[in-house]
Amino acid sequence: MRENYRDLKVAVLGSGTVGAEVVHRLLAEREELGARIGAELDVVGVAVRDVKKQRNQSIPKELLTTDAESLVVQADIVVELMGGIEPAKTLILRALESGADVITANKALLAAHGPELFDAAGKVGAQLYYEAAVAGAIPIIRPLRDSLAGDEVNRILGIVNGTTNFILDLMDSEGQSMDAALQTATELGYAEADPTADVGGHDAQQKAALLAQLAFHTAIDLDDVAREGITEVTLEQVQQARAAGYVIKLLAICERIDGHGVSVRVHPTLVPRDHPLAAVHGANNAVFVEAAAAGSLMFYGAGAGGPETASAVLGDIVSAARRHVVGGPGVAESTHADLPMADPGVVPTSYHVSLHVKDEPGVLAQIAGVFSAEDVSVEALNQSTPEHAEGEPGLATLVIQTHRAAEAQLQRCVDKLAELSVVDAVAGVIRVEGS
Amino acid sequence: MRENYRDLKVAVLGSGTVGAEVVHRLLAEREELGARIGAELDVVGVAVRDVKKQRNQSIPKELLTTDAESLVVQADIVVELMGGIEPAKTLILRALESGADVITANKALLAAHGPELFDAAGKVGAQLYYEAAVAGAIPIIRPLRDSLAGDEVNRILGIVNGTTNFILDLMDSEGQSMDAALQTATELGYAEADPTADVGGHDAQQKAALLAQLAFHTAIDLDDVAREGITEVTLEQVQQARAAGYVIKLLAICERIDGHGVSVRVHPTLVPRDHPLAAVHGANNAVFVEAAAAGSLMFYGAGAGGPETASAVLGDIVSAARRHVVGGPGVAESTHADLPMADPGVVPTSYHVSLHVKDEPGVLAQIAGVFSAEDVSVEALNQSTPEHAEGEPGLATLVIQTHRAAEAQLQRCVDKLAELSVVDAVAGVIRVEGS
Repeated sequence: MRENYRDLKVAVLGSGTVGAEVVHRLLAEREELGARIGAELDVVGVAVRDVKKQRNQSIPKELLTTDAESLVVQADIVVELMGGIEPAKTLILRALESGADVITANKALLAAHGPELFDAAGKVGAQLYYEAAVAGAIPIIRPLRDSLAGDEVNRILGIVNGTTNFILDLMDSEGQSMDAALQTATELGYAEADPTADVGGHDAQQKAALLAQLAFHTAIDLDDVAREGITEVTLEQVQQARAAGYVIKLLAICERIDGHGVSVRVHPTLVPRDHPLAAVHGANNAVFVEAAAAGSLMFYGAGAGGPETASAVLGDIVSAARRHVVGGPGVAESTHADLPMADPGVVPTSYHVSLHVKDEPGVLAQIAGVFSAEDVSVEALNQSTPEHAEGEPGLATLVIQTHRAAEAQLQRCVDKLAELSVVDAVAGVIRVEGS
Repeated sequence: MRENYRDLKVAVLGSGTVGAEVVHRLLAEREELGARIGAELDVVGVAVRDVKKQRNQSIPKELLTTDAESLVVQADIVVELMGGIEPAKTLILRALESGADVITANKALLAAHGPELFDAAGKVGAQLYYEAAVAGAIPIIRPLRDSLAGDEVNRILGIVNGTTNFILDLMDSEGQSMDAALQTATELGYAEADPTADVGGHDAQQKAALLAQLAFHTAIDLDDVAREGITEVTLEQVQQARAAGYVIKLLAICERIDGHGVSVRVHPTLVPRDHPLAAVHGANNAVFVEAAAAGSLMFYGAGAGGPETASAVLGDIVSAARRHVVGGPGVAESTHADLPMADPGVVPTSYHVSLHVKDEPGVLAQIAGVFSAEDVSVEALNQSTPEHAEGEPGLATLVIQTHRAAEAQLQRCVDKLAELSVVDAVAGVIRVEGS
């Protein structure tokens, strides 16, 4: 224990699943946490919307208050677990201005107003922690900010949404259709009643922005993050992928594009089965990082859940508390790099295109001609009439995988293919990463 | 940039592959690193044994010195990359006493004298960083120390030695014998001329001790870490494992044993093929962590290599430098928990036993009787006469997998099996984890 030992005041905003769990553990493990920190943590209050409606037994009644504003200015550490933009943003700014360190799991707020909040923290030497905002309990923020601080991150491929990974994994492992898998996910509590934020890729988009900002030391506008959800992924595509040695994952991709800046995007992606990301099953998350010197790293674990998220929040609380014990201002998030966003058309990728084509001579030559004209080379081509083909009799399914080329070139190929009279339908286009 | 900006003096001890790479990057990326830190890093010297023998072109001659002692006392940050116990230990103590932060990749030194070094750092409020000492570039020290600081780690399963993972992976994927795989590893530079430290499990033993100390906040004596290398693993065992849905990995295992303290050990282990550790191929490393609240986490990446290790060292340098810029003492390693080491006999595990038995009636009953008498239940039993069986004609191979039981019970079963007249030989015993 250090001599300048004093209790640290912790204020918690919000008393949902994570908030209640955090308060419970701060109270139950006060002594053990105190030993790890060198000072005890004193929960001074839990701000809720309505004290009477608060039914969680793990929070002592005398801690509850509706006056969040008064609470934040008296605390050393403020834990924001309310979610949403307001009043969370105002309260966090108030807390930072009064010199408190802030811990938040609020990815929506950070993705929309991160730079403003980090600036406010930097001005007074306070610190904003948000390990729980991306990939739940998986320590990814700290490794990116600290462990790789002396390296250059070139690329991140992240499975950052548990709901969509659960659904895609079920389609792959049990042959369920998208609708059936979504229903299973809803029944098991992995998908919300309105699953749009997850299946539409919005949640992953916010996390991609946060990861890119941290990895590239540059500010990212959420609107610049291209987003494609999983709603268009069919069982047929999943099965074609499996047959070809791939699995479809919804990836958040952040990468440096030589000479063009950075690209940040979210879309369903084919991943080779021997890639570490392919082994991420169920609702788990994983973030695969490629750094110039460190090589390939992967961080894997549960992406959500009350206790898991609470663990990340508590880790941040301990870090903040240790910093208070030893004194000194924190490390402000640095966005000194100021990299441009790359034109999406120049991003190199490879396409896996599934076509329903007429089963007649000369079709292959016409299709090959389209790719050739755009200077895109074909890596693999497979023709079949699978059991699940929805095409009419006389139609075959043709699956083409290209070598890497610029997104714009590949898109032009697909547009031209759709116009061919021998092509009945472009059944699906999925990008490939990790080969 | 902060107002109290000043250059920070960095001294590097050792100019091997990692040392040269670190110096090169400190010089080449001075500006970028300075922007990330808020102060510039000034390399004041590189201590080598013999200046004349120094041929690495990336280190400017004027930085070289043989006077390591004078160098460490003038630096803010000392980077020890000499390896070995002495003079590394004396120099690190000298540096810490003079208030410098120290970064080291020296796992042998930390495993043997860690507590003494951490005490010395704690006394003056200096910090000892060692991210590169375990699993190379994989950020594992920081997540265990900081991210999981508010959680309780129950178990760690680590693939922490790249050489042995390379060899076992080659046996599994290409059916090479142990000797052939070791030769391949040597030819490709994955194994040293004398591979004892790796294949004997000594390297993994040191890393297991470091991981356990950090995870359980308790001091670990290296002699208390049970060690078994991979030299006894046969291709037959690897193939039997494969047939049964497992892969053999050399694991460093650190776990809490209810009511008995902690167990830290290294041995070849059967891992189910659908476990994330099974997907760790080649010379890669991975550390699988089970925490009370965070659930299962895995950290994956390259375990060795000059640039990879240098990346971890640079991350530590940036962390140390940021701490100097903001002021204040560091967080001393805490070993307040003081947990006992569990008696190895009580550690629960399950055995996968391979026997060469006489192919005659009544054999199974006798063998089943041995397990039954020791109150060990059998999970699976498989009898075959595989192509690669080395037994004489008339012998069959029997593979038995038990449910979990105490190590001592299981060992007694194996001892009794060896005494049965119907058992020609106990061909192999491997523990199973991760089911």
